[in-house]
Amino acid sequence: MSKRDKSAKADYPPTARSRARRLHDYAHYDRATVHAVLDAGVLCHVGYAIEGQPYVTPTAYWRDDEQVFWHGSSASRMLRRLESGVPVCFTVSLLDGLVLARSGFNSSFNYRSVMAFGIAEKVVDATEKERALLAFSERLTPGRWTELRPASAQELKATTVMRMALREVSAKVSSGDPKDEEEDYGFPVWAGVLPVETRIGAPIADPRLLPGIAAPAYLQRFKVG
Amino acid sequence: MSKRDKSAKADYPPTARSRARRLHDYAHYDRATVHAVLDAGVLCHVGYAIEGQPYVTPTAYWRDDEQVFWHGSSASRMLRRLESGVPVCFTVSLLDGLVLARSGFNSSFNYRSVMAFGIAEKVVDATEKERALLAFSERLTPGRWTELRPASAQELKATTVMRMALREVSAKVSSGDPKDEEEDYGFPVWAGVLPVETRIGAPIADPRLLPGIAAPAYLQRFKVG
Repeated sequence: MSKRDKSAKADYPPTARSRARRLHDYAHYDRATVHAVLDAGVLCHVGYAIEGQPYVTPTAYWRDDEQVFWHGSSASRMLRRLESGVPVCFTVSLLDGLVLARSGFNSSFNYRSVMAFGIAEKVVDATEKERALLAFSERLTPGRWTELRPASAQELKATTVMRMALREVSAKVSSGDPKDEEEDYGFPVWAGVLPVETRIGAPIADPRLLPGIAAPAYLQRFKVG
Repeated sequence: MSKRDKSAKADYPPTARSRARRLHDYAHYDRATVHAVLDAGVLCHVGYAIEGQPYVTPTAYWRDDEQVFWHGSSASRMLRRLESGVPVCFTVSLLDGLVLARSGFNSSFNYRSVMAFGIAEKVVDATEKERALLAFSERLTPGRWTELRPASAQELKATTVMRMALREVSAKVSSGDPKDEEEDYGFPVWAGVLPVETRIGAPIADPRLLPGIAAPAYLQRFKVG
């Protein structure tokens, strides 16, 4: 798709921060692409700075409509800092393959990534917080929430949930075969893609699992990547 | 291992930035653990800030002894900014599994991560740059470098290689079964771990591959995660 076509359907109009500087063909600003990448991932990297010193913290996240959420201990340095309303860069990336071209220079990776800029805010309302945690559980293991030992008020208090609106967002998607220089296609070296895939292994039951409890069906449906 | 034991063998003595604030049992400051995590990954997340605005860029990296390297186009915004000598947070994280405890609160993830703080510097010397790119290629596909169409002077010039010394570094490793409250072990819900694994798929040959070129053996040996 040309740059012009993409601007026409930019659900997230590119800004100075979010516009791709290079590799324009890989950049996307539409909701469908951004949501698809976000919904395929589990781990994000949250970046913030304290007096010029950047911190990049990996953490689990989930998406609900036009917001992303993450959570952690209320004692977390990262979450306490974010509560003060500092600028955030929220990045999700998925490695899809090694792209082995006929030159080192044109060799690369296939990947999907999303970068979102904004200010995160703490979910203060207790009902809203519980609803957000339910959504997280449902995203990973649909139906499990009601099977669990219910959360205590103390546990909910000890958990901080942050959210950030998807406004300044871009996705980058690189896929397909190597792109070699035309004159390199005759060079006698193997070229192609080595796919990198995320797979879910067989569930490992806790050694202290009560007898007679079978692995629930939602474990089979979990998918990432 | 207790906190005291770990301090005794801290190859990377913890600083205000690199010391884990919570979950001390998961934190490691020894070379063997840090190197093992770094050598298992391919993608890092490089964090830096411009006037308080953080940027978190996913990119491929490699390790050589006590340095990590990454590279990209000499026109890259990230690399140009890093060349000016700003503080960097270099993070690598690998998701190993969903840990399904008997409560939502004690459910978590198994993962391995490394966080390194420092100032990155550009590899200026041409010979050193080529040696670094060779090391990157060897890490992914040992033996391929000499099979490739050789790099041109122009291509090397268009590639920036950055390096950062491993000095302020910590690793976090979470593994094993769920850790439930003692009174929750009798709660009748499935508990255990759902492993998340990275696998390498079968090589996909380029449609324009010259006839008679078989997939090289190093493709079978590539491993990540």
